[in-house]
Amino acid sequence: MTKNRKSRRAFLKGAAAGSVAVSTVVAAPALAAGKIRWKMVTTWPKNFPGVGIAAQRIADRIGALSDGRLTVKLFAAGEFVPAFEVFDAVRDGTAECGHDAPYYWIAKNRSVPFFCTVPGGLTPQEHNAWIHYGGGQELWDEMYAEFGLRAWLAGNAGTQMIGWFRKPITSVDDLAGLKIRMAGLHAEVFNRLGATSVNMAGGEIMPALQSGLIDAAEWGGPWMDLAFGFYKVAKYCYGPGVHEPGAAQSLVVNLKAYEALPADLKEIVRVAAEVETVRLLGEFTVMNALARQTLVNEHGVIMEPLPESLLKRWFEVSEDVVGETAAEGDLNWRIYDNWTKFRQSVIDFGPFSEFGYMKARLL
Amino acid sequence: MTKNRKSRRAFLKGAAAGSVAVSTVVAAPALAAGKIRWKMVTTWPKNFPGVGIAAQRIADRIGALSDGRLTVKLFAAGEFVPAFEVFDAVRDGTAECGHDAPYYWIAKNRSVPFFCTVPGGLTPQEHNAWIHYGGGQELWDEMYAEFGLRAWLAGNAGTQMIGWFRKPITSVDDLAGLKIRMAGLHAEVFNRLGATSVNMAGGEIMPALQSGLIDAAEWGGPWMDLAFGFYKVAKYCYGPGVHEPGAAQSLVVNLKAYEALPADLKEIVRVAAEVETVRLLGEFTVMNALARQTLVNEHGVIMEPLPESLLKRWFEVSEDVVGETAAEGDLNWRIYDNWTKFRQSVIDFGPFSEFGYMKARLL
Repeated sequence: MTKNRKSRRAFLKGAAAGSVAVSTVVAAPALAAGKIRWKMVTTWPKNFPGVGIAAQRIADRIGALSDGRLTVKLFAAGEFVPAFEVFDAVRDGTAECGHDAPYYWIAKNRSVPFFCTVPGGLTPQEHNAWIHYGGGQELWDEMYAEFGLRAWLAGNAGTQMIGWFRKPITSVDDLAGLKIRMAGLHAEVFNRLGATSVNMAGGEIMPALQSGLIDAAEWGGPWMDLAFGFYKVAKYCYGPGVHEPGAAQSLVVNLKAYEALPADLKEIVRVAAEVETVRLLGEFTVMNALARQTLVNEHGVIMEPLPESLLKRWFEVSEDVVGETAAEGDLNWRIYDNWTKFRQSVIDFGPFSEFGYMKARLL
Repeated sequence: MTKNRKSRRAFLKGAAAGSVAVSTVVAAPALAAGKIRWKMVTTWPKNFPGVGIAAQRIADRIGALSDGRLTVKLFAAGEFVPAFEVFDAVRDGTAECGHDAPYYWIAKNRSVPFFCTVPGGLTPQEHNAWIHYGGGQELWDEMYAEFGLRAWLAGNAGTQMIGWFRKPITSVDDLAGLKIRMAGLHAEVFNRLGATSVNMAGGEIMPALQSGLIDAAEWGGPWMDLAFGFYKVAKYCYGPGVHEPGAAQSLVVNLKAYEALPADLKEIVRVAAEVETVRLLGEFTVMNALARQTLVNEHGVIMEPLPESLLKRWFEVSEDVVGETAAEGDLNWRIYDNWTKFRQSVIDFGPFSEFGYMKARLL
């Protein structure tokens, strides 16, 4: 339970080490003695707890597993390309790889959130299962091949919180006219319920909340939201995040750069990403539980579930929005069809699985 | 959803490839041109779906990540040492590593189940979190160092089923006199409720059930239990498995053999094991949901929860049994104390986490 303090130290140390690394790499030759150097662009603030540190761990892990034959230099959002240009930068080879939340690229394909998180969708355990053994990865490969890309799961932030609000939400009417930071398919769900969604990268949210540009904001759950300090301007935090039941991160690679690697380095890149799925989810599981205590006990945050009537209406709209993706094309239909059947199978098994157990544990 | 068939093909192919590998390795020199060969002994039947295949994947992954500089030859239970001698075989260097369920070694230390699964304990997501970021790994390292060993998480079979019974269980009285296959701390829980627990390796269970040596059996959940065919002799399957909410496997290594590896191979061994935590849990999540359909629809299995009154009594006894481990010694107390606090923190956060979401999803 001392990990909270440890992580804060690591954050500060990491920030310092990051600055040093920039000058070192710039001064070094681009390619030395059979060694390969990659750039990793990310959608996250520099050394940010959770997703930012996870990206750095993946970069470091690739170097360690390959004994330095492949080293990866990480660039935070805006250091090399802006947060929301990561996909295009990896696509055109400006960087060999990127660490992101796939649903940021919804404009590229409306079904890309299925590889990240979908309103009313899968928990992290279910999502990992669908991607690795339910047919998800094959569908993802098919979609990304059109862009000359491939991606693998590379982290999961767990079930999110709906977000932070200045005023209490007591019914669906309270959403009317709210300007709210949301990404992915659920931005549309909130729009249909009367709010106005706007997406922005993590680092832009706090200034937007402070200036009144937005009234409410969703980001990354108690731990990461505590780091940004949202509680300073918005005291109401609602959850669980039915809009993002298991927010996955991905490592996206330029397919040509990846195919040029020898077989062992290919495996190293893939495995270094994939192991972060269990690592980061574990870190969130520990840290969110601690952050809730800090937010509620030290900062007076009101953390509550949304009213059941609002949630029911929310699920109705969300089912429409998710279902409409199937009409976009053949691949979109196959993604929706495969995913929906898988989702139903795990819900049917729910009484005997982790869910049934967690209910029994409270008897 | 075609993975079921694929996995069966892989199982058959794996079995054939396994046989070929044996003769090849025996004929090859023990150590060639700077290459290192390790033996992995396991507690599982040869190429058994789930845990057996997972062990093989770890062995193969180490070879692929290291480009063959470290290759690992897998031995199923009984091929090199019997299932329940894996711990001692790795301890004395007979094999460099093993794949197991740590709670099999409860005779070595009564608290070892905390690194595997504990009655009334943690889900897989919570367990991974506690081991990796809650202090669990450090306590595990301390315990295993006394034996010259180290271990990492290397798979998780998810929430188990209570098991298979010939006759229905309608109250706690029905457990009286039942001879039941159980391992870990929960064997004692069942004993205190009137049953007689006996542990045996997976491959021995079906013959024991058939011969009437045991009346009931717990093993690995719907998918692996289907493979063993328990439904042929016992029609009642109860769940969820409150006794094993997230059964973890581990890769255990001989510390001297591990310390002799160069830094990159050390990282490769650790990461190759750890990634199986997300892989195998995903496979179980997909396959258990499918296996339930097969068991219930094709084989007429009665799959039900245990009566609530029995579960309540079960949790009371289980809390005693788990709590008593703390009295065994200083390390045992620290494990219990750390684990109990962590468990409470994630239960407190439950309404906002995956659990709260899964409840809301059914609204």
